[in-house]
Amino acid sequence: MSTKPQDIAPESPAALVERLARAGRAAQAELARMPSPAKEAALKLAAAALRRAAPEILAANAIDMANGATRGLTPALLDRLRLDEGRVAAMADAVDQVAGLADPVGQEIDAATRPNGMVLRRVRVPIGLIGIIYESRPNVTADAAALCVRSGNAALLRGGSEAVHSNRAIHAALVAGLAEGGVPAAAVQLLPTQDRAAVGAMLTAAGLINMIVPRGGKSLVARVQADARVPVLAHLDGICHTFVHAAADPAMAEAIVLNAKMRRTGICGSMETLLIDATYPAAAALVAPLIAAGCEVRGDARARAIDPRIVPAADNDWDTEYLDAVLSVAVVDGLDAALAHIARHSSAHTDAIVTDDATAAARFLAEVDSAIVMHNASSQFADGGEFGLGAEIGIATGRLHARGPVALEGLTTYKWLVHGSGQVRS
Amino acid sequence: MSTKPQDIAPESPAALVERLARAGRAAQAELARMPSPAKEAALKLAAAALRRAAPEILAANAIDMANGATRGLTPALLDRLRLDEGRVAAMADAVDQVAGLADPVGQEIDAATRPNGMVLRRVRVPIGLIGIIYESRPNVTADAAALCVRSGNAALLRGGSEAVHSNRAIHAALVAGLAEGGVPAAAVQLLPTQDRAAVGAMLTAAGLINMIVPRGGKSLVARVQADARVPVLAHLDGICHTFVHAAADPAMAEAIVLNAKMRRTGICGSMETLLIDATYPAAAALVAPLIAAGCEVRGDARARAIDPRIVPAADNDWDTEYLDAVLSVAVVDGLDAALAHIARHSSAHTDAIVTDDATAAARFLAEVDSAIVMHNASSQFADGGEFGLGAEIGIATGRLHARGPVALEGLTTYKWLVHGSGQVRS
Repeated sequence: MSTKPQDIAPESPAALVERLARAGRAAQAELARMPSPAKEAALKLAAAALRRAAPEILAANAIDMANGATRGLTPALLDRLRLDEGRVAAMADAVDQVAGLADPVGQEIDAATRPNGMVLRRVRVPIGLIGIIYESRPNVTADAAALCVRSGNAALLRGGSEAVHSNRAIHAALVAGLAEGGVPAAAVQLLPTQDRAAVGAMLTAAGLINMIVPRGGKSLVARVQADARVPVLAHLDGICHTFVHAAADPAMAEAIVLNAKMRRTGICGSMETLLIDATYPAAAALVAPLIAAGCEVRGDARARAIDPRIVPAADNDWDTEYLDAVLSVAVVDGLDAALAHIARHSSAHTDAIVTDDATAAARFLAEVDSAIVMHNASSQFADGGEFGLGAEIGIATGRLHARGPVALEGLTTYKWLVHGSGQVRS
Repeated sequence: MSTKPQDIAPESPAALVERLARAGRAAQAELARMPSPAKEAALKLAAAALRRAAPEILAANAIDMANGATRGLTPALLDRLRLDEGRVAAMADAVDQVAGLADPVGQEIDAATRPNGMVLRRVRVPIGLIGIIYESRPNVTADAAALCVRSGNAALLRGGSEAVHSNRAIHAALVAGLAEGGVPAAAVQLLPTQDRAAVGAMLTAAGLINMIVPRGGKSLVARVQADARVPVLAHLDGICHTFVHAAADPAMAEAIVLNAKMRRTGICGSMETLLIDATYPAAAALVAPLIAAGCEVRGDARARAIDPRIVPAADNDWDTEYLDAVLSVAVVDGLDAALAHIARHSSAHTDAIVTDDATAAARFLAEVDSAIVMHNASSQFADGGEFGLGAEIGIATGRLHARGPVALEGLTTYKWLVHGSGQVRS
């Protein structure tokens, strides 16, 4: 009863976040002690509860959709918000899949016996309480919560205002199912207010919230990164490059370039800049299929000589994540110039080289300092599922803790266990 | 010539830090490409240069010591500041030792082949530019720089004003030796100003400095943690507990307790609170040797019944890191009460149980959520050298990236290398 909106109204956003965080931390301490099969079973019960609650979830979503139409949300936003039978089933399936992933908690990273006989072990443990701040996709409520619970973490969720009814219905089903499996209700909490000051309180709750994961557009991520005093796992941009080296196989290069840009243009791993080696012999055949597929191609002066349909690129094109059927193309003088362009403009997400020259590939992989560096593959593979992680909480381009696609292991830390037999230090 | 103090005087602290950070990052990109044997050789040349420069270093230190005496530094501070032949030799030996440590850069963390034939590898890479902010011990200049260079990172050092001449002499010798080995001079830079605003500029140089390691007292660490917008690797407190369980072997418990408190009282791994199980039969014999060794023992009411020389503890004693011959003692009702006390008061640094009951030990190791949890050993072992890491840049009590003693591995991150043969995503 104490979390009904009318009851919490007089509480400040900071006090609300502190109260929820303390409850989440207490629940996390219980969750951390649950054996892996118990967490797995509870997540399967949560998936079943989501399936049972499909009518309620769809009814709630219909309210959000109607409100969204009234508020004039764009068709793209409405599509992200929309649930149907298939999407609810897919959401439940995803929870089932996370339930079946190997539990990282308790895994031994390494062990050693010291000369004095002490045995040292590093063992993975949950991070603690994870704050998830997201936008219009209601499935994040279930996805993120499942990944947190599987890895022994509590989650404090703050979804977008446009999805508030959907998120509440999903959250209610989820915690009911988890409770059947013995997971305390406060292990997964949904912030009961859309007050933006509560987001600010989450971002500054150092010592209460252990990590924040923003899931959404660039303005959300930028705000979180700018204001957070809690560690943030995120990527701001995915300005991904593909460099077609002089020694690239033309058929392979054409297939990779078209796929990297056009398979899906709106994902963070899509190519935004194509670099073509000045001595690559088949540049026109890289560009023509893109244009035929409806891609706007912007180029520097040398690139525009490849195809007259290439329009001039502005200076800021090289630093722009289009997330659309738009591509910037530059002609570069060999590997060193490609490396220099990438060092200057990459967002350190995913960069790729296409070449049959093993030496050039090795240098590219060694010297490009991005979270993911690829040889002869499409940057669209930059995804936790494609990497075999089973899921992902996000993709990180920071340098500490975890980089690239982050799933269960990235939601753990470790502790040192020292097994002695009476050792004292001399 | 451009770094002479008179030249940089008109530069703002933020501009100075940005200029040095950009130079450090460029040098780091070169350093990251140096093979491990080249880095090892350069560090050995740096150690030799330190030995050769001993007269200059000691002359510089004499100036700092004279200034320190004039400024009325405490004897403890003057001792930390003081160098002699032996300490300079030890500093050079430490650099030699770091040179000989295994290089984590390039180590493969894991690898997998995907069903589509792509090979994924996670490989350790340097973090980038590390800021080290420290106080009076001039040996940190050499220690921290050596650890950074060994792991392919650049270092931007900011030492204490009381050690400014010593630090400049050590830094000059170090970079001269490193340069003989081909390490660019900007790989190890010493901030050429004692302006405190430059520390602030380092703390907020997100995107330029990748991690800050504060080395010093609690007020320095607290300031760094409060103001930093760059990730910080640190511990604020070492409020370490030892719990003597009912089933502890008395002789072992007495040896561990005395060592954990009195071997060295000023290190972060020294015990600050002793918890004694109410049914432990030999409590008086734990306390008497401490008092005999000159330790002031403060206790709750039940602890004071153990020995009349125990003085009353105040509420804040349970949250105090004495770093001195002072100990707080509480009597607790069994393992659960000990766990509850530790959960409330521990600084998550190092906590230990002494018991012959394997079940109690296992629960303690599992449920105490500290960076280091020990069974039947002295908390004074909480140290990178004692843990077999060869050295340490510091001990971390945060939850992300690295916990406990941090050495070379903690100064690396990883990247994903994807080896394809033309794969595109369907």
